[in-house]
Amino acid sequence: MYNAKAYSAATATSSLAPATISRRDPLEHDVRIDILFSGICHSDLHTVRNEWKSVMPTTYPCVPGHEIVGRVTVVGSGVTKFKPGDLAAVGCMVDSDRTCRECADGFEQFCPNGVFTYNSPDKHLGGVTYGGYSDSIVVDERFALRVPANLDLAGTAPLLCAGITTYSPMRHWGVSKGKKIGVVGLGGLGHMAVKFAHALGAHVVVFTTSPNKKDDALRLGADEVVVSRQANEMSKHTGSFDFILDAVSADHDIDAYLSLLSRDGTLTLVGAPEKPLAVRAFSLLMGRRSLSGSIIGGIAETQEMLDFCGTHNLTSDVEVIPIQKVNEAYDRLLKSDVKYRFSIDMASIKA
Amino acid sequence: MYNAKAYSAATATSSLAPATISRRDPLEHDVRIDILFSGICHSDLHTVRNEWKSVMPTTYPCVPGHEIVGRVTVVGSGVTKFKPGDLAAVGCMVDSDRTCRECADGFEQFCPNGVFTYNSPDKHLGGVTYGGYSDSIVVDERFALRVPANLDLAGTAPLLCAGITTYSPMRHWGVSKGKKIGVVGLGGLGHMAVKFAHALGAHVVVFTTSPNKKDDALRLGADEVVVSRQANEMSKHTGSFDFILDAVSADHDIDAYLSLLSRDGTLTLVGAPEKPLAVRAFSLLMGRRSLSGSIIGGIAETQEMLDFCGTHNLTSDVEVIPIQKVNEAYDRLLKSDVKYRFSIDMASIKA
Repeated sequence: MYNAKAYSAATATSSLAPATISRRDPLEHDVRIDILFSGICHSDLHTVRNEWKSVMPTTYPCVPGHEIVGRVTVVGSGVTKFKPGDLAAVGCMVDSDRTCRECADGFEQFCPNGVFTYNSPDKHLGGVTYGGYSDSIVVDERFALRVPANLDLAGTAPLLCAGITTYSPMRHWGVSKGKKIGVVGLGGLGHMAVKFAHALGAHVVVFTTSPNKKDDALRLGADEVVVSRQANEMSKHTGSFDFILDAVSADHDIDAYLSLLSRDGTLTLVGAPEKPLAVRAFSLLMGRRSLSGSIIGGIAETQEMLDFCGTHNLTSDVEVIPIQKVNEAYDRLLKSDVKYRFSIDMASIKA
Repeated sequence: MYNAKAYSAATATSSLAPATISRRDPLEHDVRIDILFSGICHSDLHTVRNEWKSVMPTTYPCVPGHEIVGRVTVVGSGVTKFKPGDLAAVGCMVDSDRTCRECADGFEQFCPNGVFTYNSPDKHLGGVTYGGYSDSIVVDERFALRVPANLDLAGTAPLLCAGITTYSPMRHWGVSKGKKIGVVGLGGLGHMAVKFAHALGAHVVVFTTSPNKKDDALRLGADEVVVSRQANEMSKHTGSFDFILDAVSADHDIDAYLSLLSRDGTLTLVGAPEKPLAVRAFSLLMGRRSLSGSIIGGIAETQEMLDFCGTHNLTSDVEVIPIQKVNEAYDRLLKSDVKYRFSIDMASIKA
């Protein structure tokens, strides 16, 4: 065991503040990673403030962060994938049972005994796991990813959640050249979806409520931008989309988007509005349409995504902040005042 | 033009009563069919009573009926598929534009210019099309189906709507041996779904609110029956279904069924509840599940379904009635008092 520096919340109403936490010494298959950048995901804020208490109550102190990029400093005797000095990344999961059907099929994110990077029971030290708002982390090499050398590291951190969350459904539902793809909502997830869909060769249409996001959407790779509040702009696209990725977490009219799908088209949710969605059966019956959902991706697919990003030199658009500004960043996150993801320069924690 | 006997409704509040209607003389590619049996579908009742007036208002007089089986009596000079004396069947459609992408792909049911068997504009005679509660019908041979000789004709009529509506999604979503399939609701559609899923080799679980339907479900081919009001019976099946066909038109808790799907499982609606369904995003995100919809099937697939029924000697369970009892049958339909479909013996219209 060793002491690590971290930023943690003591209660649901506390700010994040400097703290010292314990990390295990690397076991046979573990790597210790000095964290260079840690992305800020809206899930961090939900967990810190115990906003998901009905399904996943928060244990305090809470150290969030599941978009982690760093450099390996120590490896266990059985580690084969990394050596000290290598870049490495950690996403939303640090372990799973490795025996269930989901694990066998490479879908660790659906393992009933999965261990999340923070706020999951820690079988090694007791208590709960602590995430990436820290100077270092120790993780089984199976749950550490290799990072292509050409990528900007600050912009790589968000790939570990925002990236895989949008890449995985696009691959599963066959986003590719010749397909017409919609992206609803241009935030942390949405802007990654636009980049991936464009890189996969699809025709990309961004739906946004903010006309002033138009130029940015085009810059990110969109071919068209539709202001979703304008019914006549929406109706031009009726029945024409092969796939729509919906990254909106606020309550919204899902039927308006379902009607834009072509026959056998799919709309996939990656955001989770609190209120149940109101879905008219008729919107699905006509054209044999589907409404589906997806969360992150398995470990192998996360590696595939990082490699794809390496090939296409694709990272997240980030605003880099020191850890001391994390509470201010949370306030700005609630106002969507970031283009498009905060990435914490973790060198600042040593200050 | 010739006069045909029919039963029609004069207004939304009228009973069905004997009437004389005009049919066209067969054109080059038409067949004239003497109708032997006509099934009663809930859509007939909705249309007769103008209950879908917001999307598809009813033009009166209205002659419903789109589950039609009969014998060809006259063929046009260009007809190649039928000769007088052949059995023939007609379902929900009698024409389409034949030029759109949907028609080209064999999905006439999604053709934007499709002509329904009743209450659609009739380009030949003006007014609207008249359905199967009649002694005969004239239809383009492309929209007439061949009927396997071994099938009971009274039980064959409902295959043209209830049959194809359940067969088509099961084929599309790969219902087959080794798959676990749920059927929600044991009515006209549901009982056909059970028969098809069983014939396709799947393990079939029926969900019903009525414990007294259990024996019948098993007789129809179910392997298990779950009383959906018993939460403990439901929870035993969490995450285990490859596919669920939901044939319930009343408002119901769709999340309770979504949670029973395995990873990548699909729940398909074939009923259309009036109120929007309340869908929790989380139910779809976990396990990458899908909620979809399906209506009838294309002409080629309808023929495939009839041929499948011929091979498996599979027909609908029907209660045969004379046309004079049609209004009484409608009242009983509203109470689900039929096992499982009414089939009108159309010889009675000559009485």
